[in-house]
Amino acid sequence: MKFNEYLRNIIETRDTLLCVGLDSVVEKLPDGFPQHIDSLLDFNKAVIDATLPFAAAFKVNVAFYEMYGAKGWGVLEKTLAYLPDDVVTIADAKRGDIGNTARMYAKAFYDNLGADAVTVNPYMGFDSVEPFLEEERRGVFLLCLTSNPGSADFQRISDGRQKVYEKIAEKANQWNSHQNCGLVVGATHPDELAGVRAIAPTLAFLIPGIGAQGGDLWHSVQNGTDEFASMALFNSSRAILYASSGSDFAEAAASVARHTRDKLQEARRHKRSKRELK
Amino acid sequence: MKFNEYLRNIIETRDTLLCVGLDSVVEKLPDGFPQHIDSLLDFNKAVIDATLPFAAAFKVNVAFYEMYGAKGWGVLEKTLAYLPDDVVTIADAKRGDIGNTARMYAKAFYDNLGADAVTVNPYMGFDSVEPFLEEERRGVFLLCLTSNPGSADFQRISDGRQKVYEKIAEKANQWNSHQNCGLVVGATHPDELAGVRAIAPTLAFLIPGIGAQGGDLWHSVQNGTDEFASMALFNSSRAILYASSGSDFAEAAASVARHTRDKLQEARRHKRSKRELK
Repeated sequence: MKFNEYLRNIIETRDTLLCVGLDSVVEKLPDGFPQHIDSLLDFNKAVIDATLPFAAAFKVNVAFYEMYGAKGWGVLEKTLAYLPDDVVTIADAKRGDIGNTARMYAKAFYDNLGADAVTVNPYMGFDSVEPFLEEERRGVFLLCLTSNPGSADFQRISDGRQKVYEKIAEKANQWNSHQNCGLVVGATHPDELAGVRAIAPTLAFLIPGIGAQGGDLWHSVQNGTDEFASMALFNSSRAILYASSGSDFAEAAASVARHTRDKLQEARRHKRSKRELK
Repeated sequence: MKFNEYLRNIIETRDTLLCVGLDSVVEKLPDGFPQHIDSLLDFNKAVIDATLPFAAAFKVNVAFYEMYGAKGWGVLEKTLAYLPDDVVTIADAKRGDIGNTARMYAKAFYDNLGADAVTVNPYMGFDSVEPFLEEERRGVFLLCLTSNPGSADFQRISDGRQKVYEKIAEKANQWNSHQNCGLVVGATHPDELAGVRAIAPTLAFLIPGIGAQGGDLWHSVQNGTDEFASMALFNSSRAILYASSGSDFAEAAASVARHTRDKLQEARRHKRSKRELK
């Protein structure tokens, strides 16, 4: 099965657009967890168990594990192995390197970690992206327009006709021959999100910034999903992970995840009802 | 000591511009090494011992280790620990992520691996680069113009005044307040290399592509070094690592490294003599 079909199935079956971001850090572990790298796995498992009913996807931010070196990679491997088969797993790695090196990274994330999808930085162009696209079952989310202030530095440079991030969206359409090339577009730019969706109407979008970063959830759903109010995953990390620092952290995480799922569904229903009225 | 001063000292003391790239892969290990991840460390140590007299720097391509997960990270850590203090060590990671995540990566490469410098993908802009620049002792090489065919896709988009890679060079100048921000510019584009050097006359350059990729070594030295024929590292990986697949691999690696060092020195002398004639 091609990644896009897989993603659409998961979204429809689980009836949610929520992606839970496992950006777990030792210093923020709730009461009762020893502040040590080994505790991250137990914390992740508890968060996964609590939020699973509301999530279509889980995203691991590779940096948060890699900072602990080999030990961190061990926790990453075990976290991915713990995630069930019927959710989309995303390695948020933002890698990007020349062909033979990109192939190594694809092996690291697809074969060793078993991730369904990976985020890739497209600055080095097609031959740096292609090795990630070769397996049609695996999805690739290319950085397009990001949610941080620095996105202004290079992403919006324009040749008069198109900005760099719009060119990336256009290229992603061309690179989607296996139906597995998607885009990362920040929720902090809802108008520009609509522009990217117009360029790439059918691609899978990964949309960060709806949680702690304060992006506009409602407009991001209207502007970021496809014509069926699907094919987009909305990521929230810190707002869910650190909903409570007490022993009720798992219930609190579940509560924020449920609330976010509900808000996303409400916005989807609005978009669908508007479409049916047409 | 600031990174740029450290780099210049190392280049002058060791009298070489060569960077040896440790892109080691299990499948290409010479005769006598079991084809297993554990063998990579012994191979790396033998290559380091053999090429050390000719090298100013060693660059580890993180992907080649990360593909083996936690075990690969272990080999990476031990390889970095084996490298002596009086060479520049570069983690070729090409990372780039938002501020708090970039800080994690900086910790992974500087504190855990102990690398002197790291390669960073600047597509996400200043706040993704800044955490790597905070320690003035550590150097940052921003991807500017790369040596692969895909460099044509986004790096050369022009706003009429400047191309994206030229804007990156200009920004790198601004971000060099700690004297530790450099650039990656491929040897496969010697004319454009001269253009980047004109924009950033004093920055440290990491120049890949002189080995197996077939870049023009002579012109790259004329165009890529600073006015004193310094401040540039020229990387060769495969041509050195796989100079022989027999039991003489270390002697063969030393021979290629020595030859490359000599070619680089010859080109430097030419540039210096031209300067003195002026």
